[in-house]
Amino acid sequence: MKKVAIIMGSDSDLPKVEGAISTLQEFGVPFEVHIFSAHRTPKQVRDFTSKARESDIGVIIAAAGKAAHLAGSIAAGTTLPVIGIPVSSPELGGMDALLSTVQMPSGIPVACVAIDGAANAAMLAIQILSVGEQALAIKLDAARARAAAKVLEKNTAIEQRYSR
Amino acid sequence: MKKVAIIMGSDSDLPKVEGAISTLQEFGVPFEVHIFSAHRTPKQVRDFTSKARESDIGVIIAAAGKAAHLAGSIAAGTTLPVIGIPVSSPELGGMDALLSTVQMPSGIPVACVAIDGAANAAMLAIQILSVGEQALAIKLDAARARAAAKVLEKNTAIEQRYSR
Amino acid sequence: MKKVAIIMGSDSDLPKVEGAISTLQEFGVPFEVHIFSAHRTPKQVRDFTSKARESDIGVIIAAAGKAAHLAGSIAAGTTLPVIGIPVSSPELGGMDALLSTVQMPSGIPVACVAIDGAANAAMLAIQILSVGEQALAIKLDAARARAAAKVLEKNTAIEQRYSR
Amino acid sequence: MKKVAIIMGSDSDLPKVEGAISTLQEFGVPFEVHIFSAHRTPKQVRDFTSKARESDIGVIIAAAGKAAHLAGSIAAGTTLPVIGIPVSSPELGGMDALLSTVQMPSGIPVACVAIDGAANAAMLAIQILSVGEQALAIKLDAARARAAAKVLEKNTAIEQRYSR
Amino acid sequence: MKKVAIIMGSDSDLPKVEGAISTLQEFGVPFEVHIFSAHRTPKQVRDFTSKARESDIGVIIAAAGKAAHLAGSIAAGTTLPVIGIPVSSPELGGMDALLSTVQMPSGIPVACVAIDGAANAAMLAIQILSVGEQALAIKLDAARARAAAKVLEKNTAIEQRYSR
Amino acid sequence: MKKVAIIMGSDSDLPKVEGAISTLQEFGVPFEVHIFSAHRTPKQVRDFTSKARESDIGVIIAAAGKAAHLAGSIAAGTTLPVIGIPVSSPELGGMDALLSTVQMPSGIPVACVAIDGAANAAMLAIQILSVGEQALAIKLDAARARAAAKVLEKNTAIEQRYSR
Amino acid sequence: MKKVAIIMGSDSDLPKVEGAISTLQEFGVPFEVHIFSAHRTPKQVRDFTSKARESDIGVIIAAAGKAAHLAGSIAAGTTLPVIGIPVSSPELGGMDALLSTVQMPSGIPVACVAIDGAANAAMLAIQILSVGEQALAIKLDAARARAAAKVLEKNTAIEQRYSR
Amino acid sequence: MKKVAIIMGSDSDLPKVEGAISTLQEFGVPFEVHIFSAHRTPKQVRDFTSKARESDIGVIIAAAGKAAHLAGSIAAGTTLPVIGIPVSSPELGGMDALLSTVQMPSGIPVACVAIDGAANAAMLAIQILSVGEQALAIKLDAARARAAAKVLEKNTAIEQRYSR
Repeated sequence: MKKVAIIMGSDSDLPKVEGAISTLQEFGVPFEVHIFSAHRTPKQVRDFTSKARESDIGVIIAAAGKAAHLAGSIAAGTTLPVIGIPVSSPELGGMDALLSTVQMPSGIPVACVAIDGAANAAMLAIQILSVGEQALAIKLDAARARAAAKVLEKNTAIEQRYSR
Repeated sequence: MKKVAIIMGSDSDLPKVEGAISTLQEFGVPFEVHIFSAHRTPKQVRDFTSKARESDIGVIIAAAGKAAHLAGSIAAGTTLPVIGIPVSSPELGGMDALLSTVQMPSGIPVACVAIDGAANAAMLAIQILSVGEQALAIKLDAARARAAAKVLEKNTAIEQRYSR
Repeated sequence: MKKVAIIMGSDSDLPKVEGAISTLQEFGVPFEVHIFSAHRTPKQVRDFTSKARESDIGVIIAAAGKAAHLAGSIAAGTTLPVIGIPVSSPELGGMDALLSTVQMPSGIPVACVAIDGAANAAMLAIQILSVGEQALAIKLDAARARAAAKVLEKNTAIEQRYSR
Repeated sequence: MKKVAIIMGSDSDLPKVEGAISTLQEFGVPFEVHIFSAHRTPKQVRDFTSKARESDIGVIIAAAGKAAHLAGSIAAGTTLPVIGIPVSSPELGGMDALLSTVQMPSGIPVACVAIDGAANAAMLAIQILSVGEQALAIKLDAARARAAAKVLEKNTAIEQRYSR
Repeated sequence: MKKVAIIMGSDSDLPKVEGAISTLQEFGVPFEVHIFSAHRTPKQVRDFTSKARESDIGVIIAAAGKAAHLAGSIAAGTTLPVIGIPVSSPELGGMDALLSTVQMPSGIPVACVAIDGAANAAMLAIQILSVGEQALAIKLDAARARAAAKVLEKNTAIEQRYSR
Repeated sequence: MKKVAIIMGSDSDLPKVEGAISTLQEFGVPFEVHIFSAHRTPKQVRDFTSKARESDIGVIIAAAGKAAHLAGSIAAGTTLPVIGIPVSSPELGGMDALLSTVQMPSGIPVACVAIDGAANAAMLAIQILSVGEQALAIKLDAARARAAAKVLEKNTAIEQRYSR
Repeated sequence: MKKVAIIMGSDSDLPKVEGAISTLQEFGVPFEVHIFSAHRTPKQVRDFTSKARESDIGVIIAAAGKAAHLAGSIAAGTTLPVIGIPVSSPELGGMDALLSTVQMPSGIPVACVAIDGAANAAMLAIQILSVGEQALAIKLDAARARAAAKVLEKNTAIEQRYSR
Repeated sequence: MKKVAIIMGSDSDLPKVEGAISTLQEFGVPFEVHIFSAHRTPKQVRDFTSKARESDIGVIIAAAGKAAHLAGSIAAGTTLPVIGIPVSSPELGGMDALLSTVQMPSGIPVACVAIDGAANAAMLAIQILSVGEQALAIKLDAARARAAAKVLEKNTAIEQRYSR
């Protein structure tokens, strides 16, 4: 199975990325984690992206805040699908990171998920890999069923609590 | 090769979606186009999503404006990757569609592209299919090279125009 | 008397919905509470909405955050009036939920109240029921009079405190 | 059947309100139209609201732009359900009218619809009246069915156009 | 000397208004304080505004949050100058109150100060009264001089701290 | 009677200021008009503000766009009341000018009116002068009455048009 | 004298950059113009930035729209001062480009000017060069004096027009 | 070497400015610190700016919040490059200060950095001085190399932690 690469711009982003790591672990999808900075270590970004496809990576997840260029920089260096996680910061709540991640110019798309949406970034990566991996599709269906069951269970509890 | 399905919420969105159609045609990627409304024809959305994977669809692109629920509704019905195009409208410039598309809850991701970013939605769909299709990866590299060449050419023209 | 149904997307929204529950209790309006997710349990949403009118429900209140599709999904399945409560989240303060709830497309309205405005959602539901229930209109007038009296009392206190 | 009252703040808002008028006419719901200004003719607003319920009015629709106080002023004078239409203006696209209409304080709700959403305001008014009017519920179901049929028809056309 | 009237929409706004009270006390400007609600006690607002000018009031300050209609409602009832203080709330940081206060329609102006700008509201009220009260103009000049002196003093301290 | 001074930052703002001029003419209030730039001609701003009160000016109106510092610069140089008109520009619709005008620091208030609200700026200036000029108060009441009459007249027309 | 380099992301940005070119010409500051794309021709960006200082360039101006990464990409490749011009686009009015340009992470600053502020970008570049070039400082002072004179002249015209 | 001047509007801004002070100390760049208020001590601003260039100052950094006029006021008084730091405040997160700082009118540019971006303001000042100071260019390159090394080190740690 192809791997997922998770890149963050700084180790301070690790807490914002942990939801992606645990989701990939839960689905048994192989992954690697890197700290590369679009602005401080652009060479590492290039070295990584230029070999990403041949390194058996299938999807890249990039998390960054403020003027979040990381996902776009990675997308510029590979034609693999790149998922961007806009990371919130106290001043503007992540609106800056969201716009910097999603408003990419024609030809170089980034697949943007919600602000601080690390778990969903991993989910999307798994869904992308599932296009060619029947086994993952089955796991995803099972996860959806479990999530639905959990909602139904909570619904039963609350319906009883408020029934008269 | 898997197909791409393009869904729009209303036929008035067709001009906003044409960039996706022409891009897929340019890359020779098979696709189908539908008008389904999350709110007016929810049954059609369900029928489509429940059979999407077995219908040889690999990626779904959904375009909608304002309280843009279409991509999310489709994502709720399949574990295939779903790409959302937030469509602009005059009042809020597409900010409403962007937030309604990208801020999805945990477990049901949508891959959001730029406001009115139809060409990039198709590009992302092709990149997703390229994970398992070496031929598409080669075409994508060639397209990137052509885009770069075009920029270089324009650069040469402008450098000459302003050289002294 | 018709019932009010309160739906939330997740049990974590319960604190945001309690103002609606207590208001309905205060007015003696019958209600039921459910947890249904537009994305995780769409079938339950459909089952509920398709039978809502015949189940003696008069108004539905739906609370959800971020890309808040719940109220819109419910509105798509019934022609009963649906009231949406946009639930705030730390990143964007509820602006995402507000736009996702209020900017509905033509034909499928949602009656949106203030961000985290659960008490007002219930108040609006009671006002809707009061169109056909004279008794509720009388109770509403009394509540308005009590609220005014409370303001007048506080005004008297503050006027005295600052009079010279 | 109860009437719907449509109030606008100025006759320049008439084009923004026409969608409500035509929708009510289409459903055969009796209505009246007024120009009252929360700020210029507050007495008329009071006279109207204090007698609204006894005048056989069931729902009030109020359209206003900028610091849109009209719906809130009307809601302060009656316990009938009041629907607010935030009217867009060139500067801020209607964001000012949206926030001024929807962010009402506890106890005095306004049912806010989309910016310039006059047709939906009328639809919501009809849905509110339908709680006590079986005939309207049937008409609403028929309208939904017609809207769905129209989408399906357009879908067939577009599917054929792009099928190969 | 004319009086300043300070109106707040709810006693919970008192901490947001105290800066105005202490500023007026500091300048020895007579004032009165009221709690009137545009929506819960509109009659009190009218009674107050209709007699404001003859009650020797010169300026009215109104503080309110969210869909802040209080200043506008008061302005509709008198031609005295009305100063609006938009009060912040956690969700949107006061942007809703700011737009609801400042974006008044033609003919009924409100003099809007900064979000939570109570001290400045009082300062502006005093400046307005100073147009006809030479004594206040002198006090204002003195206060400006004191404020400047305080900045100069702090500047001296910091210049010394960082001089080498 | 004291005069009103209207200052604009550039002669391109003249169309945005004409509503103020015509309103002052209508009320017979003496005024003067200047073009001073906070950034290009700061000395003129200072010369003007330092002599404003002794020049028999009662209120100053300042109109500027983008990072609109003009009203604040003038307010820093005089303790007369200063009214700021935030002028819209195509990019951000005047949100930049609004925040730059209204969010003044403690001690130096600006009385901000709506974006492009020149007529209301003049109205507010007249209301400020009316605190000490009974004749203006009477004119303002008459203008309010005329405005109300105009609304009533339009209301009669529209009520008849839509009565059945 | 050091040169100014103007970089734009696409030749469609040329009209947005012309104000910078004409300003530099007016001041007789040598400059060069390039089209480099952060995403389509990253190698050209690197080649350019790595040699910029030794090529006698003193300041770099970069103009880009939407998720405007160009200025940041250039800033990552050189320690010369980089000025970013956020270019507006119809959807969000340039707010996306502004935040993507200005909100740079620690260590890699961009000097951001106003949305579409090309003339000011050149002005700032000249001011930067003037730190070491007395002649430019003199020219800048003269330009300021001319700008002030132009305002004074227009002021005289408007003062006469409205004097009575 | 030319000096950098750091100006803040109030001593409460000192914590927001310390990143600039420590950065300048780290690079051994001479600097001075002042508290000047655009509105409370405009004369000091003028006195400072009119002598800034002859006082051997090369760059000026100005930090202010809300309707942040300080950088613009300073820029109006000198043709030295002026860097603005928009300081955040709780209500609007610094959006007001950002727009007030960056959206300067033609002819009077401010080099705006990120909200609360004091360290970057100093970095930019050093980069500006480095245009004429080879020694600073070398120090800046070394700092970039150190920053890159730090990222690489953290990357090695995280790669090992997550390698399997």
